[in-house]
Amino acid sequence: MKVIWNNEIVDRSQVRIDPEDRGYQFGDGIYEVIRAYNGTFFCLEEHLDRFYSSASKIEMNVPYTPAELKHLVNRLLDETGIQTGNLYLQLTRGVSSPRNHMYPDAGVLPMLTGTMTAVDRDAAKMEAGIPTIVTDDIRWLKCDIKMISLLGNIMVKHEAHKHNAEEAILHRDGIVTECSSSNLAIVKNGEILTHPDGNLILPGITKLVWIRCAKALGYPVREVPFSLDDLYEAEEVFCSSTTIEVMPVSRIGDHVLFDKVPGKVTRALQNAYLEEIEQQCGLLTV
Amino acid sequence: MKVIWNNEIVDRSQVRIDPEDRGYQFGDGIYEVIRAYNGTFFCLEEHLDRFYSSASKIEMNVPYTPAELKHLVNRLLDETGIQTGNLYLQLTRGVSSPRNHMYPDAGVLPMLTGTMTAVDRDAAKMEAGIPTIVTDDIRWLKCDIKMISLLGNIMVKHEAHKHNAEEAILHRDGIVTECSSSNLAIVKNGEILTHPDGNLILPGITKLVWIRCAKALGYPVREVPFSLDDLYEAEEVFCSSTTIEVMPVSRIGDHVLFDKVPGKVTRALQNAYLEEIEQQCGLLTV
Repeated sequence: MKVIWNNEIVDRSQVRIDPEDRGYQFGDGIYEVIRAYNGTFFCLEEHLDRFYSSASKIEMNVPYTPAELKHLVNRLLDETGIQTGNLYLQLTRGVSSPRNHMYPDAGVLPMLTGTMTAVDRDAAKMEAGIPTIVTDDIRWLKCDIKMISLLGNIMVKHEAHKHNAEEAILHRDGIVTECSSSNLAIVKNGEILTHPDGNLILPGITKLVWIRCAKALGYPVREVPFSLDDLYEAEEVFCSSTTIEVMPVSRIGDHVLFDKVPGKVTRALQNAYLEEIEQQCGLLTV
Repeated sequence: MKVIWNNEIVDRSQVRIDPEDRGYQFGDGIYEVIRAYNGTFFCLEEHLDRFYSSASKIEMNVPYTPAELKHLVNRLLDETGIQTGNLYLQLTRGVSSPRNHMYPDAGVLPMLTGTMTAVDRDAAKMEAGIPTIVTDDIRWLKCDIKMISLLGNIMVKHEAHKHNAEEAILHRDGIVTECSSSNLAIVKNGEILTHPDGNLILPGITKLVWIRCAKALGYPVREVPFSLDDLYEAEEVFCSSTTIEVMPVSRIGDHVLFDKVPGKVTRALQNAYLEEIEQQCGLLTV
């Protein structure tokens, strides 16, 4: 299998990560997941912008220009021959020994790795929706940085899994933020509500796209904090992320069930999102 | 250099970490730093207990018994020939591909790595104390788990470094919790105050030792939340950790200077801590 290792495409078996890579000892790195459809990346520019933005927020230098990165990920896509799948791209602060909390000198080269995995769109799941739980947002206070120190995220995802759910809806003192690996929105009194960007959520690129679609379709969107009460009283609830696109929530914990998913607004956004994909990547068969 | 790699002692050059090790992609792992003096580990039992406790809190199985781990780390200490230094021991949830937030099946073997570094006691620094800054505690809400998702910790440490300080004193809404890589205590009106254990701080082993010493010496210790005002009004301030032991704070930001460090109580605790070391590890020459 071909993968990215620094500025090269190599066979996966050649990649060797040092035990004193700061990504391994401190979770000191950032990442992006970028979806390809029909052999073309969707929203590549936006993802690379966020990659540089995350790096900048932790004062890490990306040792490649955006043009170089774009060339590299497109080469990986070509060489793997994957049509529809996910690129995982990660940059850590590199190898620094002996272990020390302090950022290393500028001479230490950040470590880039990237893999492509073939993953079809799960159209059936987008129809059926996903069950969720509600739990405390235990994460740190810089959730706008897409970083690899993800133990908080995976713990709440595991919590969801233990309750036969696929996502954990997170709240801080009763205010809903987002999910463990997706943004969240509700439809209430005909309005779409979603938590504003800032330090408590990831600025989702899929969210950016569906907000644009919603506005074009004439649905009012308000990026405002909303409560657990609002969540439970919502007419529709959906998550969004690069990998799950616009995904209806079918259940919240044991109590709340929606008669029918996707709801009307969610369905309209799913369709509009699909059109956005097809404009960039060509007609989809799945 | 000899290192621990799973249940063996190997040459460092043999160690190969997979790019899809969950430690590398999710910060999904735990660690301990254990100090050796005169060729003997200090508080080894307590550190191994905490190692298992951290693993248990993230539902990760340690695939070795405490006796096996003890044997392994003592073998490493012997084979490196290091007398006084730090053991870094890390366990991640192992390699799981393709990347997925969910914890992998029980069949995936956690990955153990460990290195010894020779580090002398810095007696001069324990006399001079360290400069600190005060900043927001941006970390997650499970700080009792000694885990490798440390980006929050290293960001505040870097913040300290940019202000020519060595530690960052953290607070949540004006309540002092601990530092980026150490616990914190103040002496105020003759009492020693330090934040209680719980989800907001690491249950420090060095703290455990100096609290025992303080009580034996007749100093009142209260494990209670205290404020930034208390901090600024304190007669003495000190940090504690495995690597820095009982370390006086000489400066807090630009404003607060202590006439003389270590203060009387801090000095007494340093001496008592040294006696504890010497009881376990023999007389120290530095």
